[in-house]
Amino acid sequence: MAKDMSPEQAREAFRGGLRVPTSGFSAGWTQANLISLPREHAYDFLLFAQRNPKSCPVLDVTEPGETSASIFRGDLRTDLPAYTVYRDGELVEERAEVVDLWREDLVSFLVGCSFTFEAALLEAGVPVRHIEVGSNVPMYRTSRQCRPAGGLSGPLVVSMRPVPAELVAAAVRVTSRYPAVHGAPVHVGSPGALGITDLGAPDFGEAVEVRPGEVPVFWACGVTPQAAVMQSKPPFAIGHAPGHMAITDARDSDYQVP
Amino acid sequence: MAKDMSPEQAREAFRGGLRVPTSGFSAGWTQANLISLPREHAYDFLLFAQRNPKSCPVLDVTEPGETSASIFRGDLRTDLPAYTVYRDGELVEERAEVVDLWREDLVSFLVGCSFTFEAALLEAGVPVRHIEVGSNVPMYRTSRQCRPAGGLSGPLVVSMRPVPAELVAAAVRVTSRYPAVHGAPVHVGSPGALGITDLGAPDFGEAVEVRPGEVPVFWACGVTPQAAVMQSKPPFAIGHAPGHMAITDARDSDYQVP
Repeated sequence: MAKDMSPEQAREAFRGGLRVPTSGFSAGWTQANLISLPREHAYDFLLFAQRNPKSCPVLDVTEPGETSASIFRGDLRTDLPAYTVYRDGELVEERAEVVDLWREDLVSFLVGCSFTFEAALLEAGVPVRHIEVGSNVPMYRTSRQCRPAGGLSGPLVVSMRPVPAELVAAAVRVTSRYPAVHGAPVHVGSPGALGITDLGAPDFGEAVEVRPGEVPVFWACGVTPQAAVMQSKPPFAIGHAPGHMAITDARDSDYQVP
Repeated sequence: MAKDMSPEQAREAFRGGLRVPTSGFSAGWTQANLISLPREHAYDFLLFAQRNPKSCPVLDVTEPGETSASIFRGDLRTDLPAYTVYRDGELVEERAEVVDLWREDLVSFLVGCSFTFEAALLEAGVPVRHIEVGSNVPMYRTSRQCRPAGGLSGPLVVSMRPVPAELVAAAVRVTSRYPAVHGAPVHVGSPGALGITDLGAPDFGEAVEVRPGEVPVFWACGVTPQAAVMQSKPPFAIGHAPGHMAITDARDSDYQVP
């Protein structure tokens, strides 16, 4: 079962070619977004993250060129299920590994992912639709702009989970205990107020059904850095493919408060 | 009363020459440590902060040369009660303002301060000795090293509050809700294990009495960046004088989870 895999086993499977979204994998282990940028853009990114902590909670930063991180003892170039490659802000490729594209000046940022608190949601009796149906979580570009930093700017990206109305409070309470992996929702209900016109047409991932009696609940999403890359057009960047995360050696409980 | 001053009133008083520790000032408003460094050292500092989030929770970062910040609408050069000035890592001066020392390349970092959660401690019935006696909080260099970043390295600095044994759990619970201002204690009891040989001789601030039945409780302290400056010797830096904080326009509740 994917949920019982150790981080090492999951990474080995991805390195071997398994290419699936990681929601539900390695329960209890922290998942992370990846963004790798040339060193000259690293300060702007760290500042962007500091100014937008809900969407960009930085869990770890490598030295330039490093292929592993203190919380990720695998190989950042091969051990995620899929990668995105950007040139001048344009998504030019999605691929299974990025070994031949790696550069000595790439600084890699691991950014918290809301998949991390899904085990806690399930434990609290809050259903998670995209896990139930085995699809990728739906993600949306919003009309809300992040605070810019240096050359970086872009919209807030959110993930959405439909939550039964009577469990919305529980979902807020549970996830607010994980501020390092996006924490409490940024928005509950009313997708239009975020500039989302059609829940059925997510910008990343796959749509899920919102059933009668359910409310769409929105959490800040670690794809936000990639949206900033698309808008701000640094010459080169590598990311994870949305929903196809880095499975780290940190435990969810490491990021739980209080 | 100091505790009833608005942030603006407190800053005006400090600008006018009042030179006292700020513990107990402007209850409900967030206090912050200041460290201003030349732009070329800013990335190393942000990375140092990311790697040492308990001691260096960054609340705000200015653009180079800016004299105010989004959460601090006063003047960073005059509106703290006292400043420290470092050249090549050496504390060369403590002074009431730094107007003539300001440089266009200085990036200022506001770092969370544990004074922020003291109002919550008092409200929960946990006494705060240095407020009771009207002195500065005692702070100690520990034998624990921070994770270095680029050219920056140094020891963890902690603040200490004596807590009655039956209230230690409450103190942990209350402060863990404020991860952005150092959060839960890093250490409870046993100062020797932190390399602190004499509680009566703090490295910064003033000693306070630890009474029978009380346990010394240690929180990570935002003087840690200044200890890193002393060890790492960037050519120039400005800090707040320990205990003499920036009183910001952010509310304590902004940093409370869940």
